[in-house]
This record gives sequence, C-alpha cells and structure tokens, in this order.
Amino acid sequence: MPAAPLEITARDPGTRARAGLLRTAHGTVRTPAFVPLATKAVVKGLEAREVEQLGYDMVLGNTFHLFLEPGHELIRGFGGLHDFMGWDRPIVTDSGGFQVFSMGHGTVADEVKGRSPYGGERDGKVLAIEEEGVTFRNPRDGSTVFMGPETSMAVQAALGSDIALVFDECTPFHVERDYTARSAERTHRWLDRCLAWHAERGPTDQIVYGIVQGGVYEDLRVEAAQAVVARGTGGIAIGGSLGADKDQMHEVVGWTTAALGGRADHRPRHLLGIGEVDDLIRGVELGIDTFDCVTPTRLGRHGVVLTPDPEKRFRIDLSAARFKESKEPIEDGCPCPACAAGLSCGYLRYLAKNRELTGVRLLSLHNLVYVARLMRDLREAIGDGTLGEVAARLRSGSAPSTAAVVASPV
Amino acid sequence: MPAAPLEITARDPGTRARAGLLRTAHGTVRTPAFVPLATKAVVKGLEAREVEQLGYDMVLGNTFHLFLEPGHELIRGFGGLHDFMGWDRPIVTDSGGFQVFSMGHGTVADEVKGRSPYGGERDGKVLAIEEEGVTFRNPRDGSTVFMGPETSMAVQAALGSDIALVFDECTPFHVERDYTARSAERTHRWLDRCLAWHAERGPTDQIVYGIVQGGVYEDLRVEAAQAVVARGTGGIAIGGSLGADKDQMHEVVGWTTAALGGRADHRPRHLLGIGEVDDLIRGVELGIDTFDCVTPTRLGRHGVVLTPDPEKRFRIDLSAARFKESKEPIEDGCPCPACAAGLSCGYLRYLAKNRELTGVRLLSLHNLVYVARLMRDLREAIGDGTLGEVAARLRSGSAPSTAAVVASPV
Repeated sequence: MPAAPLEITARDPGTRARAGLLRTAHGTVRTPAFVPLATKAVVKGLEAREVEQLGYDMVLGNTFHLFLEPGHELIRGFGGLHDFMGWDRPIVTDSGGFQVFSMGHGTVADEVKGRSPYGGERDGKVLAIEEEGVTFRNPRDGSTVFMGPETSMAVQAALGSDIALVFDECTPFHVERDYTARSAERTHRWLDRCLAWHAERGPTDQIVYGIVQGGVYEDLRVEAAQAVVARGTGGIAIGGSLGADKDQMHEVVGWTTAALGGRADHRPRHLLGIGEVDDLIRGVELGIDTFDCVTPTRLGRHGVVLTPDPEKRFRIDLSAARFKESKEPIEDGCPCPACAAGLSCGYLRYLAKNRELTGVRLLSLHNLVYVARLMRDLREAIGDGTLGEVAARLRSGSAPSTAAVVASPV
Repeated sequence: MPAAPLEITARDPGTRARAGLLRTAHGTVRTPAFVPLATKAVVKGLEAREVEQLGYDMVLGNTFHLFLEPGHELIRGFGGLHDFMGWDRPIVTDSGGFQVFSMGHGTVADEVKGRSPYGGERDGKVLAIEEEGVTFRNPRDGSTVFMGPETSMAVQAALGSDIALVFDECTPFHVERDYTARSAERTHRWLDRCLAWHAERGPTDQIVYGIVQGGVYEDLRVEAAQAVVARGTGGIAIGGSLGADKDQMHEVVGWTTAALGGRADHRPRHLLGIGEVDDLIRGVELGIDTFDCVTPTRLGRHGVVLTPDPEKRFRIDLSAARFKESKEPIEDGCPCPACAAGLSCGYLRYLAKNRELTGVRLLSLHNLVYVARLMRDLREAIGDGTLGEVAARLRSGSAPSTAAVVASPV
C-alpha cells in the first residue's frame, strides 16, 4: 500500500482548509475536490470524456452495486473498472457498507432498482448482521448474498480502483450511544480484517482509506479517528450519521478533522455523501480534501438546478409554474451546455417535466459544472490566501467564477 | 408560400435518384437527407448543437404532441419552435394526422406517455372522425380535443416551422379499397382547406407540403399524386400505409415517385416514417429527397445498434448474452462517441440492460452517426455518378465511410 499520497501545497491561515495534490496510480486529483458518482460504472447521463472535460479528476464507483451487477469478476475480465467504463483517471470505490446497512431503510432498494421498467424485482432486505459480515437478500433477484470485510476488499481489488474504502458498519442516526459505540468497535475489527486481506492479496498500488464512524458523539468520533490513524491507512473517510441538521453535521465533521490533525495531518480526508453547496464550503474550511454526493446529479434528474442564492438553499426547482414562460437561462454566463446555448428555463422546465433524457442530462451537467466552478474557486482561494473572503462571497450569493473549468494534466 | 425550393444538383442516370439543395427560411438541407425526429421539441437524449455536429441539416417536430404539450401558443411566446428548442436550422413539422388517426391503435398513447412515471393518465381515444376534423380524448388528461385541417395549420404557423405538412387522414392498412378511396378524397378536401388557411394566415416563408395517400392501390396513389401536384404545393410527402412488407412498400413508393415526375419533378419529396438502412437506400433510388423515422433513436433506446450486416437486417441487439464479455467496439473506425472512445459492446450492453441514460444516449448517437454516414455516401455517390456501385456495396455489407460527417454551412 502506498504511503500517504497527499502533497499539501497551501493552507488557509484562518481555518483548517488545505489545498493539495492527491497522487494515485491513475493520476493526480487537485484537492479540495468534489468526486462525482459513477455508482454503477457511469456518471448518469454523461460520457467519461465529458466528466473529464468538466474538470473532475476522480469519480466514485460503488462496490455493492457493481458486485451485484454486472459482477466484479466480469469487470476484472475487462481489465478492471477503468477499462470497463473508459475512464483512465483516478477512481475511488465505496466499500458497500453504507448500501448494505441502509438496505433496511428502503433507500437502497430504490437506488438499485432506479426507475427500471423491469418487473419482478423484490426488495432487498438484511437477513443477518454478524461478526463475520452481513447476509442480505439481493434486491435484483431475491437471492441470498453475503458481504463481509474480505468480500468488499476482494471486489475492490477486482475492480482495480485507485482508492478502496474499508467495509464498515454504517450506524444509523436513531440508535443510542451504546449501540453506536459497539458498532464503532466492530468497524475497527473489520478495518483490521480489511487491512490484513489487502496486505496479503490487494493490488500494491491501491490506496486504502479507513472510515471513521462514531455517530454524533464527540468522544466516539475522536476515539474512532485515533483508531483509524493508529492503523496507518493511506487516507481517512468520515462516514455514518453526521447529525440531525447541518449545524450538528458541521460540528461532527469538525471534531473529527480536529482529531485527524498532528501526526495524521498529511493523510487525505474524504467526507462521504455530503455535497450541498454550503456544506462543501464549510467542509473545505474544516479540512476536508474530497467529497462525494449524489446531490448534483440527482437534483438535476428531478428538475432542480444549483444557483447562487443562499435564500433558496442554492437551488431552484424548475418545475415551479413561474418558469413556464421564462425566457431566461438558468444563470447568465454559466459555461454549462444549457446556459451557453441560451436555453431558457421555460424550455428546460418543459423537458424536465416530461422526463426527456436531454433535460435530465442538461440539468445534471449544469449542476456538475456549478460544483466544479465552486470547488475550483475554493482551491484557488486557498492557494491565494483569500479563502475567507471567497467563502463569504460564495455563501452570500455571488456566483462562482464562470470561466470554464478545465481538465487537469494527469 | 415560396416557390418550389429544391435545386437539383445531380441525377443518377440508372435510377430516379437525385441530389440537391432544399432551401428554407432557416438554411439549406443537403438532399437526399435523413431528418431526425424532434417529436417533442428535442431529439431524444441529444442537444441541438450535437444534432448539427452529426451533420444533420433539419429535424422534424410533431404538431400533435406540441399542440397538447406544452401548447403552440406557449411556443409562439418563445418566438417559435426554433427559439424554444435552440435549433436555428430548418424544421419540418408533421401535421398530426398520423398521430390522431393511429390513436385508436394504441401506439400513440404509448408515444405520448413514453415511459413517464406519472400516474393517472388515460388512454387517448378517437371520439369522432367527421368532415370537419377529428375529436379525440387527450391521452394526457382525458379532456376532449378537436383537430382539423385549420387547427393543424394554425399550430404549425405558431410553431413557425420552415416546412408544414397538411392535415391528412392516415388510412390504415387493413381497410378496403373503397374506404381508402373515400379517405383519399377527404384528404384532398382537407388539403384545399389547409392551403386556403395558409394562403390567408400562414407565415409567408413557410413551405407547405401536400401528402399523397392512397394505400397500396396503384391507381389511387397515382390519382392522389396528381391531385397534390395539381394544387401546386411547395413539396410532396408520401404517407399512409405503404404495404405489408418491404417489397410492397418499395413498389408503392415507386408508383408514387413515378407519378411525381415530369412537371412536378423539381418539387421536394418526403417519405414519412421510413428509415431502415435498406429502405433508405431504395428510397433514394426511387427519387425520395428526405426521410424521417423513429428507428435510429428508438432502436438505440432499446439496445439495438446499426451495423453493416445485411444478414442481420443491418442491426445488432446488444442485449444478447453473447455480448456480455465482448471487448470489441460496435464498429471499428466508426466516429461516434462510443466507438471513438473504444467502449466495448460488453459495457454498452451493461448500460443498455440497466437503462442507464448514458447508454441510451450513446446507442442513439451511434445509430444517428451511422445513418448520417449512409446518407452522406449516397449523396456523394449521386454527385459522383457512382450510385450504382455505392448502393450495391452498402447493401452487401460494406460500412459507410467512416470520416466524421460535418455540419453544412447554413
């Protein structure tokens, strides 16, 4: 396993923010960075070359989904996930823990089934959570499937991702402190098993990230951070329940990155599943290097676009009747294909309302362009020593720079 | 109404094929040409600029669909269909006759509803076919709607298309000769009403095409062709039932274009709803100038790709199990984004099987690129006097030229 691969190139004096270069076997990620989801080996609606053209250096594939379909052995046969999906830049793979554990809540069954028109699928269901791993019902075909720490690492080895995440128990929000504490302990035992499997059989150029759990309890988060740091993983992800609201989430992330300072400061930090505009700004200030989230593409698929308006939570729902006759673009000057072509909110609303593929795609593109612009501004501000004012401006409703974001040299 | 706008630049000595330039208010269409469907103001999955980059000069919008949603008055408010959809090149609009009359068969209800996840929609249904026009139940909301010749022309005037098609009765295949004959007569009375409306209130730069009906009966087709020619329409479309199989279809088209020679020879001829590879080749030989068809994009949405193999009807169904592990591209050298990026049939199959938007889009693009290449080869062959050998080669399984088709100067 490679040593800590993050070269920190600049730090903001007023916060924990840092900018850097995260080096992987398939190239370098400019941090802080947002990582678009390629959950099922594709960024929904986009070609790999387009994701690169938007200025994104890395995408996130999902172990759980690719394990079930098309299967990691099939992807291995194609030379791994990079070759399979035609993306030759860095890939991080989520471990599948989140999907397995949230299956009981129904969200994953929806995620797996998407809007698939095929009938006959059964809901996924967790059958047993044991020390060895988790047994669940395959939401695709009802078969019984087992996934444990070794399974997850074996799948990620077959996928050949640049960064693998260890298999963790993703503790839900509503459970008590005792359950959270016991769950975090199991996550650490699973971390050891993941690292042992990887040391023996994992790809030598694959970086492994440990995952910090611990719910909304400061002492548990600190203990978990120390436990992961003590294992010497190549990077650190922050997962699990981050609280009931944004304030609590920012507090939990803050406790954790504080505990990751000092000796572990140079290790890259990934915040799992967070990607709203204000959370990205705050996350960067708290010292997060990379983020992934379904938000930009999922919102786009539902007709919601990102916009520099904090009063509206940085989003506009184009399905609102007031856009029916609107001839305005989403955002003047935005370099996304819809805004650059001068397409009106009225037309985009019509496409979105009718679930036209082109609409889904254009709105996803707009949102990914928005987030790319935002992250570029934050990166550059850290380098320029102006994060304080840039973050304040972005928070108060200034649009991110409109120059097109460009692909990095690999 | 402009005079006949087709400048014939070359003719094939061995067939009725001709190449030309069809001039409209929004630019010139190089003929023979395939016209991609933008039924609902969008070529499914594509941006307007992409359609142009594929080398297509014109798209076809649908009066029936746009009348129901979002409504022609709304589109007029945007400055017409060109401005609404961001396409500043030629547009032809279908009259809505086909959709209204085939509603009873269920296909249009599907077409309208697509794979929309919205519930509560009722099937469309024809309530009355009368001399005045057709009353039907709106498949979107169950309301009662009337469409007649004047309605269709008024909608097309509001849309501002470059070429409008007159409202016709689209005679089904299974009816008898007497019904077909009476139906064709009504179509000619409706033609007169369309032309009268257009002369008084239609846009002066909008070209109007008459439609030749007449089913599979040679004398009725010839009469219908003569009736349309006698009205002096700017162009002529061939519609309705073209027969039970390809041989009969080619025969029917042949009778019709033969009857359109002589004095009417210089008028552009559009073949409605035909677009399979072998039919395009034969149609060009029979003297058709433009074609529209759902085939290339619809096949793509269902995982079927065009390929130079006549044994397989020029198509391959990627959902076949034999492609599961295929590392081959669809076609070596094809300039479409999927083939150019070297994406494998195995990956494309996986995307298509899971109805991933990217897959739908890539396969539609491949098919539209294939048809663009085919039509370019046919156009150039007519100009070079080599149509005979080029058509024979394309029919026997040679791939169309792989140089990227380029957009025309407007």
